[in-house]
This record gives sequence, C-alpha cells and structure tokens, in this order.
Amino acid sequence: MAVTLKEVAALAGVSRSAVSRCFTEGASVSPKTRAKIERAANELGYHPNALASSLTTGRTKLIGLVSNNFHNPIFLEVFDLFTRSLQERGLRPLLVNLSDETDPENSVRMLRQYSVDGVIVASSTLPVSFAESFHAAGVPVVHSFGRYAEKPRVNVVGIDNKEAGRMAAKALIDRGYNRIAMLAGPETATSTEDRLAGFLEAAQGVEVSTSFAASYSFDAGWDEMNRLIAAGNLAEAYFCGDDVLSIGALSGLQAAGYRVPDDIGLIGLNDMEMARWNNIDLTTIRQPIHDVVRLSVSMICDMLDDSHASPDAHLLRCEIIERGTLRPL
Amino acid sequence: MAVTLKEVAALAGVSRSAVSRCFTEGASVSPKTRAKIERAANELGYHPNALASSLTTGRTKLIGLVSNNFHNPIFLEVFDLFTRSLQERGLRPLLVNLSDETDPENSVRMLRQYSVDGVIVASSTLPVSFAESFHAAGVPVVHSFGRYAEKPRVNVVGIDNKEAGRMAAKALIDRGYNRIAMLAGPETATSTEDRLAGFLEAAQGVEVSTSFAASYSFDAGWDEMNRLIAAGNLAEAYFCGDDVLSIGALSGLQAAGYRVPDDIGLIGLNDMEMARWNNIDLTTIRQPIHDVVRLSVSMICDMLDDSHASPDAHLLRCEIIERGTLRPL
Repeated sequence: MAVTLKEVAALAGVSRSAVSRCFTEGASVSPKTRAKIERAANELGYHPNALASSLTTGRTKLIGLVSNNFHNPIFLEVFDLFTRSLQERGLRPLLVNLSDETDPENSVRMLRQYSVDGVIVASSTLPVSFAESFHAAGVPVVHSFGRYAEKPRVNVVGIDNKEAGRMAAKALIDRGYNRIAMLAGPETATSTEDRLAGFLEAAQGVEVSTSFAASYSFDAGWDEMNRLIAAGNLAEAYFCGDDVLSIGALSGLQAAGYRVPDDIGLIGLNDMEMARWNNIDLTTIRQPIHDVVRLSVSMICDMLDDSHASPDAHLLRCEIIERGTLRPL
Repeated sequence: MAVTLKEVAALAGVSRSAVSRCFTEGASVSPKTRAKIERAANELGYHPNALASSLTTGRTKLIGLVSNNFHNPIFLEVFDLFTRSLQERGLRPLLVNLSDETDPENSVRMLRQYSVDGVIVASSTLPVSFAESFHAAGVPVVHSFGRYAEKPRVNVVGIDNKEAGRMAAKALIDRGYNRIAMLAGPETATSTEDRLAGFLEAAQGVEVSTSFAASYSFDAGWDEMNRLIAAGNLAEAYFCGDDVLSIGALSGLQAAGYRVPDDIGLIGLNDMEMARWNNIDLTTIRQPIHDVVRLSVSMICDMLDDSHASPDAHLLRCEIIERGTLRPL
C-alpha cells in the first residue's frame, strides 16, 4: 500500500498541511520543518502523487505537445527547446505524434482525458481549425509556427510567412536572377500558401514559376527537383519551401551534374542545423525558433493564470543567412 | 462543475458500470448500450478522466521517455518510432530531456510523481546505473540502446556494440587500409567503450590509433577531425563513433581539401536519414532501430502485466551499408 501524507505528518510530528506545503512548488515551509518532513518521508518511502493532487488543485502540469512532422530535422531542435523550456517551469510535455492520424479529434479527446493544463500545437502545416478545437473544448492552446490572423481565434506565435516569401524573391532579384521559381511545400499547408503569396507579390519584372513538393522532407525535395530536371527548362534560382526541401533539391541538382550556385541558385527557410554543415552550406532565411518557443511557453503559462484573456497573434521577424548556394550580391 | 459518470448513467438509463465499461479500452458493452451512453455523454459534455480512473486502476498509461541527446538527428527517428509504437498500444509518452540535468535522481523522482506505468531510457551514453535507479524505485524500465550484460539488472535492448566495432575494423582491413583509426564518441559513453574494444580486438596486423570526440554531434566530429588534421599524420581510414560524428569529420576533411574516399576513407554507425542523402552518401553500419523500438515497447508492455519477470538483455545484429565514403572491396 502507498504511504499517505497523514502517516508522514504523524511521524514528523507536524500538521498535514505542512507536509502538503513541503511538496508544493513555491509554497512556504521553514527549513527546520522541511528537514523533519523529508526525514520522515524518506523513512516511510513516501512520494507525493502529482496526479492525485491534480484532482484537488485542478492542475496536472502536463502540457500536450502536438506535432505532425517527425521527418523534418528542424523538429528535433523544436522538441529540445520546448522540453527544456517547459521543464524549467515545472511543466511536462506529453508528446503526441499526429503523423498517422486521420481524425485529429482523437487527440483532442485523448489530451482532455489526461487533463492537460494546456496544449502547444507545433506545426506550420495544420489548419487553424485544429488548434481551435482545443480552444472550443476549453483547453488553453498556443499554435506555434501557426498562421497569422489579425483577429486570431487562438493564440498564435509564428513568423511572417508572407514577408519571408517577399524576402526570398527580393534576394533572388537583387542577385540578378531573371528566371526564378518557388519549389514550395505541400500545397495545402498554410505556410506554403503564405510564403508563396509573398514570393509572387515581390517577384516583379522577372519570369516566375511555381511547383509543390508532397511534404516538408528531403525525399519530397529530391523527387520534385528530379521531376523539374526531367521536364527541362529549369529556372535560374529556386526558393524552396524550407531547408529540408532545399537540401533534397540541392542533392538532386548535384546528382544530375548541376553546380550550385554556378549553374542554379537555391535559398531555403528555417536555418536548421544541417544548413550550416560545411558540406551543405545552404543560404537560407532564419526562423527565430528560440523566440517562437520562448514566447509560446510564456503565453501558455499566462493562460494557466488567466484563461479568459483574448487570443493574440505574434509575428516574429526572419533574417537572411548568407552561405554558399546563391551567387553573391 | 465536471459532469460525473453517475449523471451519464442516469440520463442513458443504464448502470454506472456500463458507462465505465463503455470508456474502458477492451471492455465489453453492447452496440445498443454504447450508442445510448455516447448520446448521453455528448449531451452532457462528459469526458472520462484518465487520471482520476488511474487512482482506482493503478494505471496511468503514461510512459516516461527519457533521452539525453537532442543534437543527434537519429533521435528524431527514435522519437517518431517510440511515439507511434506507444500510441498504437494506447500508451502516452511523457518526454524527458536530460540534456541539462546534473542530478538524474530528479527525473526518477519526477516520473514517480506522475505515476508513470513504465520508463524507456533511450540512450547509448547513460550508465547502466541510471536505468537501475528506476528499477530500484519499483518502476518497470527498459534501457533502449543500452549496454549488454550477461546477467542484466534491468531490461536492455540494444545492438552488439563490440561486434559493430569488429565489423568496422574488418571492413577497413578488407579494403586494404593499412593505417586505420577510430574517431570515437565521448570517452565515458558505454557505447564508445564497447565499440572501441571490438575495433581494437579486430584491428590486427595494421597500424591503429584512437581519439575521442566530446559528444555524438556534428560539431564534435568537425572539431576532432580538425584537431587531427592540424596534428598531422592522418590515418588512411576512420571508423567514426556514429553517423553524425562521421558527417562532422567528413565535412572537416572536405573543407581542408581532402577527397573522400580517394585520400581518406570513413565509415559511420547508425544509418540515420542523412547518411543516405546524396550529398553525404556515407558508408555506415546500420542499427536496426525499428527492431530496437518495437522490442523495447513490447518488453515494457509485458512488464506491466508481470513486473516480477527477471530482467533480460537483447542484442540485435547490425549490417554494413555500402555507400561512397570507403574505397570498394
């Protein structure tokens, strides 16, 4: 049988409320009392049960961390930053892999069953409605890398994808490329729509073409570039939907004998770790993922204290990282 | 106020036990009764609370998934496979990032507080004692990618790291390299010790040298190879402790003007996704990570049913994947 708080209190010769405070983060208890309680707890083998206490506090300190792309290396960095940032605040990520999920309502139901205090949806491809279904169920939610809206229905922290598309087009035009193209991410992703809209808006006075990859993955970039090579009539430079697509496309070009950037230029988006690997050396647009994560966790924590604040959308700025896949300015 | 099971039973006109069975996986309830209960539950907005019910069943269906390296891309594949495999069995991963953790006992305490049903330690660098501390606390544990022992004190699923070291040495000698070296992982990692021991055992009749990288990461491989280049007297071929170290070392060699495999050969270990990227094309020793994950999850599930079975250690076989960083046989 599990040892109870009452038994610890009796052995330590203190009140039950003192034992409870001793095991509650931030609650006050004198060093002397704490020492007595910890001695008694060790002797009896007592461990506070976070889940049992959640039934009285209404807090589990569990945060659902939902992602639908485990094939894009950027997500290892995203998971690293989220788990650290949540752990620092005494919160714990319950990781949900939506990759095979056809009915997202399943994850809403499941995370409600675990009484998570909040949910972070980390995805640039899921529709806004997915995060909204948590909000509708009364669960605090932040959509990280989600789509901006002027009057958002849930909290969103992301980058200005339209502006990133404009930056990419401008970078190509400024370097003298006359036939430019976007090798975009999956056609249904909100990030694809916004990056493409910005790209087309800024791609004035040059020849422009567009195509879509099946997903944000190396294989999708490789496949789409090989399709373009086979079809002939390549552009002079490509803005790829993100870094892992860029590396797939780069690899496809190199395998077909094209030199980058001498024959064809490439620019990515994310600045994931591999982009700076010397044997890849990808010119790219950096997403401030540290800031996206920090702000997302901070917003979830604010909602735990005040769940009735209006949803807010934060757009963070990107910057171009010059490396070796575009000809110099 | 939360809707109770009793209210759902009353509205549906069924027993409380029928409602309970309806929301318990695998429990039997007639389709007609289920329909009545689901209608009532929807009308009242009832959701079963997995954590409240864990207090009576003694099961939370939470599994701690502990890792200490979020800089090695292989772990994104590992997390993908573990989350899918656990989800398929109705289990949920509580992700723990030990990267900054100086006192591993903290995570033992924390996971006990969450009453996890079991723990998977996914690491080839943590000492055996870490997994043992969960076992000592009465928590079912499997150490995935852990060190083999003939009489293990906890369940272990991993590869035969010594045999992998022997395979690497043999592969280099068979290809005619006369001065070979291991650029190993961190010196304290159990995987490093075992891979190195096997490598040295099989490296007979050739000149052999050894050095250690600071961690399993690109930067550590890059730094160590640059140190070796500066020191002069490079070996003809290197067995790097794993793939991400290999790619760092490869990148360092290429940046210094060496051609791989014409000047220097390289072989890695893991066969992570980037190894097959066309612009990396790394010859490597494949770890069967699908099998490691599948067997680990299956062992944890067996322990949930019978926590008194003796610990077991499973060693899985590796194979050489021929690509472009060693001269042909």
